[in-house]
Amino acid sequence: MNIGVIGCGYWGPNMVRNFNSYEGVRVLGVSDLRDERLALIARLYPNVKILSKDCNDILHSPEIDAVVVATPVSTHFSLGMEALANGKHILMEKPMTATTDQAETLIETAEQKNLTLMVDHTFIYTGAVRKIKEIIESGDLGELYYFDSVRVNLGLFQSDVNVIWDLAPHDVSIMDYLLDRKPRTVSATGIAHFDTGIENLAYISVGYEASLMGHIHVNWLAPVKVRKTLICGSQKMIVYDDVEPSEKVKVYNKGVEYVKKREEAYDLLVQYRTGDMLAPRIELTEALSLVAKEFVSSISEKRKPLTDGQAGYRVVRILENANESLRQGGRVTEL
Amino acid sequence: MNIGVIGCGYWGPNMVRNFNSYEGVRVLGVSDLRDERLALIARLYPNVKILSKDCNDILHSPEIDAVVVATPVSTHFSLGMEALANGKHILMEKPMTATTDQAETLIETAEQKNLTLMVDHTFIYTGAVRKIKEIIESGDLGELYYFDSVRVNLGLFQSDVNVIWDLAPHDVSIMDYLLDRKPRTVSATGIAHFDTGIENLAYISVGYEASLMGHIHVNWLAPVKVRKTLICGSQKMIVYDDVEPSEKVKVYNKGVEYVKKREEAYDLLVQYRTGDMLAPRIELTEALSLVAKEFVSSISEKRKPLTDGQAGYRVVRILENANESLRQGGRVTEL
Amino acid sequence: MNIGVIGCGYWGPNMVRNFNSYEGVRVLGVSDLRDERLALIARLYPNVKILSKDCNDILHSPEIDAVVVATPVSTHFSLGMEALANGKHILMEKPMTATTDQAETLIETAEQKNLTLMVDHTFIYTGAVRKIKEIIESGDLGELYYFDSVRVNLGLFQSDVNVIWDLAPHDVSIMDYLLDRKPRTVSATGIAHFDTGIENLAYISVGYEASLMGHIHVNWLAPVKVRKTLICGSQKMIVYDDVEPSEKVKVYNKGVEYVKKREEAYDLLVQYRTGDMLAPRIELTEALSLVAKEFVSSISEKRKPLTDGQAGYRVVRILENANESLRQGGRVTEL
Amino acid sequence: MNIGVIGCGYWGPNMVRNFNSYEGVRVLGVSDLRDERLALIARLYPNVKILSKDCNDILHSPEIDAVVVATPVSTHFSLGMEALANGKHILMEKPMTATTDQAETLIETAEQKNLTLMVDHTFIYTGAVRKIKEIIESGDLGELYYFDSVRVNLGLFQSDVNVIWDLAPHDVSIMDYLLDRKPRTVSATGIAHFDTGIENLAYISVGYEASLMGHIHVNWLAPVKVRKTLICGSQKMIVYDDVEPSEKVKVYNKGVEYVKKREEAYDLLVQYRTGDMLAPRIELTEALSLVAKEFVSSISEKRKPLTDGQAGYRVVRILENANESLRQGGRVTEL
Repeated sequence: MNIGVIGCGYWGPNMVRNFNSYEGVRVLGVSDLRDERLALIARLYPNVKILSKDCNDILHSPEIDAVVVATPVSTHFSLGMEALANGKHILMEKPMTATTDQAETLIETAEQKNLTLMVDHTFIYTGAVRKIKEIIESGDLGELYYFDSVRVNLGLFQSDVNVIWDLAPHDVSIMDYLLDRKPRTVSATGIAHFDTGIENLAYISVGYEASLMGHIHVNWLAPVKVRKTLICGSQKMIVYDDVEPSEKVKVYNKGVEYVKKREEAYDLLVQYRTGDMLAPRIELTEALSLVAKEFVSSISEKRKPLTDGQAGYRVVRILENANESLRQGGRVTEL
Repeated sequence: MNIGVIGCGYWGPNMVRNFNSYEGVRVLGVSDLRDERLALIARLYPNVKILSKDCNDILHSPEIDAVVVATPVSTHFSLGMEALANGKHILMEKPMTATTDQAETLIETAEQKNLTLMVDHTFIYTGAVRKIKEIIESGDLGELYYFDSVRVNLGLFQSDVNVIWDLAPHDVSIMDYLLDRKPRTVSATGIAHFDTGIENLAYISVGYEASLMGHIHVNWLAPVKVRKTLICGSQKMIVYDDVEPSEKVKVYNKGVEYVKKREEAYDLLVQYRTGDMLAPRIELTEALSLVAKEFVSSISEKRKPLTDGQAGYRVVRILENANESLRQGGRVTEL
Repeated sequence: MNIGVIGCGYWGPNMVRNFNSYEGVRVLGVSDLRDERLALIARLYPNVKILSKDCNDILHSPEIDAVVVATPVSTHFSLGMEALANGKHILMEKPMTATTDQAETLIETAEQKNLTLMVDHTFIYTGAVRKIKEIIESGDLGELYYFDSVRVNLGLFQSDVNVIWDLAPHDVSIMDYLLDRKPRTVSATGIAHFDTGIENLAYISVGYEASLMGHIHVNWLAPVKVRKTLICGSQKMIVYDDVEPSEKVKVYNKGVEYVKKREEAYDLLVQYRTGDMLAPRIELTEALSLVAKEFVSSISEKRKPLTDGQAGYRVVRILENANESLRQGGRVTEL
Repeated sequence: MNIGVIGCGYWGPNMVRNFNSYEGVRVLGVSDLRDERLALIARLYPNVKILSKDCNDILHSPEIDAVVVATPVSTHFSLGMEALANGKHILMEKPMTATTDQAETLIETAEQKNLTLMVDHTFIYTGAVRKIKEIIESGDLGELYYFDSVRVNLGLFQSDVNVIWDLAPHDVSIMDYLLDRKPRTVSATGIAHFDTGIENLAYISVGYEASLMGHIHVNWLAPVKVRKTLICGSQKMIVYDDVEPSEKVKVYNKGVEYVKKREEAYDLLVQYRTGDMLAPRIELTEALSLVAKEFVSSISEKRKPLTDGQAGYRVVRILENANESLRQGGRVTEL
């Protein structure tokens, strides 16, 4: 299988390395508008045959079977559509598209053409998130209560998208994957501290059915780096701290229960429960390696990838609604 | 000056101890509905003359000059009014009242009667918050950008008030004191995970003028204790971590600036700035001791206390609106 | 059972409270040279009958059955002997005596008189140390490899004893209890930074049989508070961090194994093993409460207490030898 | 200037990259016994002309001006001598040699031949250590009291050298650089937990003049990674935590002073001082880049490098004596 990569930013070389590490797979071409990125690839991976500033050299190459679209989000849709039109499977960088309409069209087109559409929700492939998913699926957490995620830093200010489109795809994709529920409402508040009008701070609330909610705080303007997620259930609670070098996932055997005080009465008594904390061993396989593997094997096996177009759509839908709510001063949107 | 204390919960004995430590001040009476609390006071402070289950014994004692109202919030207003009616200065536990209407009536009545009305926003009197205020007033932070506070824990579930009325008074009073601005909008989302219908998790957003916002996360159902506040300005940024045994306040000389790339162009360039971090020495005087001192000296000096009725009103106003927004599914309230 | 307490420092009031909390046990008398300490007891515990600056009022009171000796270490021996001479059981503050000779005499005398001699190695009674002991006894750690303890702080400089006699009793008693082995060698280095000639920094090495050693770092002159102990075995490793508010004990399923590469060869291959980390729930019962309970019940049940005179002796022996080694510039002492 | 690198382990490719980044400098040849290391260099740095399994191809190349010796320590001396014999400047990996005798011969030979001898004490070139040196030289710490370093981990067990020769060169070189004093005594205790007889845990004490000492704890068998150094002075104290992603260096304005109570009396009163903590901004330049720069510029400028043969000798001397003391069960060695 020959892969073409369009857009070679920070992750580009890692993409190439990871695809190349699978037998029978090879990155045949890379395109980027910047000479220095192409030169870097030339130096690191002299076997890449096509190096071009014109993405059409990738999109129209008859030798290329599948295309990675890793350009700014505004170009995702047209590049993805063009790739599909040329009969190529596509791995879309996150967020998959700039709108839900685009997402729907992309999904439909891929289905019509019987081509694989996968979105690179990288965090889903990390050892930490996979371990948390395993714990949730085992039922150990009990009923899910809330998902709370903070991703703040003195981060790179983007000039084309705000902090919601830049950082929240991580948290929203993790939340979508772990909770596996339909969101009902989305609202967001936030602020642009500079003349660009691009929000650098935002809070997103997502309402699920009665007893479950999600909340995400993304922020480019914080003095310390925080990547902390709480996933709380009726039986156990998880703290996932991605900044921790080890012990990223901590499972607390803690909880609260309301019990009736007396049979006949409506009186409720709160009981607190505190037990051990377990930090399970986390597998260290590079997430991007598993992304590459999933893309390649879902194509070979002609099956939906784990993070398929629908997953991409669901994430874009929350981002889009959050952004709309932000524009309207925090108005709650029903989904 | 003779003090009477109505309601002797967790903080009651500390209240007595702190008032007694000032010369010329004495706690003369304590009332509480629970025998064991009165017995505790009797044992620890044998000099307290009046120990009663009937608060009227405090409210109507001609010897008592000032009353501390430290009962559940639903009773604050009537007890405060009764104390004022009997010519007594009042120190109200936070939140000052259950509604803004009550707060306004209390303020007016105290003014008409020329009596001191103070609210016990304890955190305002901690060394950490006083140091942060000092830094903000020095102008070191530059223009204020945002206030973000997280107060979560596997905490005591209250049966009469939700987590907003229980925990957020701390954060809202700190925010009000430090920012010293008029809020324009309030919204809140949250959830009650148990049949009681009392919310145990809430997120509050407060909008100020264009470039400033506040956000508060309060939560009774978290596996770890977090009390962390970010106060971010254009020049410096503060992390206030109340769980830290030392170095509670860290001042980061970090920031972002947008500069024009060229004179004529509209092009903006982001510049990141990273400097030293300073953790100033924090004074360790017990906050409650300074609360007692401020109450006593504002009465003697016939001046408004630092945390006066207006401060109490402003806090209640945000809580009330947050609560209302929560009830309405997160609708944004204009103040 | 009537208890008398000689020496009422920081822990004195807690001692009284804890003994009083057991039915049938009562603190009858307290002596201290300082009026203000006696006044404090009078206020907090009005039921204490004897309050005296003369310890003989305790030692010779016919009503008192057992005496707590909580004075400076230089007076431990004579007070303990006098108490035994008057037929009283004794609970000695740590370190039990100033020399091993004194320790031996005290043990013998208590045995001859059939009186209980217990030493207050408080840490042995904490939930954390009891949990670690339980884990070690279960065999989970495998073969014990080393014990490494750091106890540093900007601490109270003592004027009568050096940092070894002041802080190391904690670590040495924990080490003695957990390892349960005979030490063979002791050496220590350290330094007195001030004219008093009293060492404020010391490192103690204790050699056990071939593959086990202990090391203790005690220090009054450090900018941060550290109380961290590593207990490492062939199968698992424990980090005990007493400064942590929760998760004081962490058990790491980690290790190293040497395996033969080939049957005939002498070649060894190192294999590293990394698994889960478990922070077991720690019981929160106040250690001093269990100390009081053990003293009282070992007297009633006419059995040796958990921390008996021999435990006291073993700790004093290591301290004495460490101190001697320190005096001799670090010379290794064979025990 | 043409550089040759002998031994291409973990750091090898970084060495090549850093030397190549300076104008007029070029890595011309690399030798290593392992084919895969040479292949890696060929791929990453196709400009390296000589790639050989025979180090003589480097040592005898007339085009090569300077040689980096980055092989196991047992071969350092002979390779260094051979390089000098061939008129080449040498940068020796740490520890410089396996014995002080070798160190002395190497120094003498380099001097006779007027060639540069530098040792790669990498940590000396980190932003953190340079900042600490700057603070010490400013006099801010006051009189130096002690240096305490802990470097533990579940680390790579070496098969040719023990943990002293493997890890302690870091701490000893930092200590030598920062304290800049003559050590008087060295002692060490430690233990080999496996049949190899190679110690995996060691404690090293270094005595300086009266009021200064150093202590180092190195350990391959610990469940957590610790790299923490305390450098304590009479005026301020530094905690250098190399595991911290930011705020690696913290300067505490804390201390203790003894003051005379009365003019005539010998009575001393302890006074504790607590002030701000400052975490200065640390420069992020890669240490190895500065190592390469210093080697190149000290050759060009015909001056001693910062970490010259004497620095290498001083480090080897402490390691050698520590190792000898360890062999003798902890006997104190006078230097």
